[in-house]
Amino acid sequence: MAQLKLYDYPISGNCYKIRLLLSMLGCEYQRVPVDILKGESQTQGFLELNPRGQIPLLIDGETVVWDSMAILVYLARRYGDDTWLPTDAIDETRVMQWLAVSENEVLYGLARARAIKLFNRPFNLERCQKDGIAGLGVIEARLQANDWLATEQVSIADIACYPYVLLAPEGEVSLQPYPAVRAWLERIQQLPGWVSMT
Amino acid sequence: MAQLKLYDYPISGNCYKIRLLLSMLGCEYQRVPVDILKGESQTQGFLELNPRGQIPLLIDGETVVWDSMAILVYLARRYGDDTWLPTDAIDETRVMQWLAVSENEVLYGLARARAIKLFNRPFNLERCQKDGIAGLGVIEARLQANDWLATEQVSIADIACYPYVLLAPEGEVSLQPYPAVRAWLERIQQLPGWVSMT
Repeated sequence: MAQLKLYDYPISGNCYKIRLLLSMLGCEYQRVPVDILKGESQTQGFLELNPRGQIPLLIDGETVVWDSMAILVYLARRYGDDTWLPTDAIDETRVMQWLAVSENEVLYGLARARAIKLFNRPFNLERCQKDGIAGLGVIEARLQANDWLATEQVSIADIACYPYVLLAPEGEVSLQPYPAVRAWLERIQQLPGWVSMT
Repeated sequence: MAQLKLYDYPISGNCYKIRLLLSMLGCEYQRVPVDILKGESQTQGFLELNPRGQIPLLIDGETVVWDSMAILVYLARRYGDDTWLPTDAIDETRVMQWLAVSENEVLYGLARARAIKLFNRPFNLERCQKDGIAGLGVIEARLQANDWLATEQVSIADIACYPYVLLAPEGEVSLQPYPAVRAWLERIQQLPGWVSMT
């Protein structure tokens, strides 16, 4: 029984985060495709589920969760063990720091640069690339000395940053200068349950 | 004894979030002013504390926490009760949804529009205002039917969204069309421990 339903768009990095964590947690789920380019996230019915009109959206029985960061937190708490999102205050805070990076430099830098190139979105490419590169520098420095972003183990912080870092070259940001980032991408790809974006 | 140290810039909304929560939690702390316009967040010494070179930054004894969202989570877990950041998975997820709004529509919409007007930052005003207005619409809809953003009580979700919503008019986004938002701003200002930004 697929109680979990994911409203999903295949090449959205934010949706890929969720598919990745669902797979790593061994959760079965039903994919509901939403063609955002055809306005399917702006229909009355969809807006009743998510007033922001965005994917991903997760439905778990009676519970509706919008926003990729919130969905990662929900899945980790509900179906994961303590390593994905620690309950210890300091470790949880470390996860939050990198979730913040995923929502800022990664999303408003790398993901937007990609969206300009792929979907012709009206942002400033140079500005987005610059923000993204600043984020990559911070991530690289952390990973030079640690295997994972937030703690000593993989957590939702890694899952949150992974897709748009991986896809940075689609926004014409090279990963060549970041050896520790590239090794970390490889490490994630070795994890049980890893799936590719498409 | 002021064990807590906040690296702070008075007119930063992200710093104000932290001062507000510290005050509401009754925490004493020492303010360390950082003049970001004079580059004081880009010195070698500061970058060793926060590789992103941003304020706010919190030091609590041995623990260094950067990023306003992460600091809110840290303070709620360490010094607050369960209402500020619930441990129940669904309630915690609700808080995360609105923290995400605070990092997206509010920060990249309303706060950036303000930063263009106040600090001449190189963003697209019309675009930022549009994103901010989309966020205000979502916040207004929630507050039409609820007193607080995430749960039935005030949480760090409210604190995270409050400053840049309050300051929206400085980015030339009017709060006139949002009566429920304005009532919520008033409610926050009535809370024990509320302090003004300056």
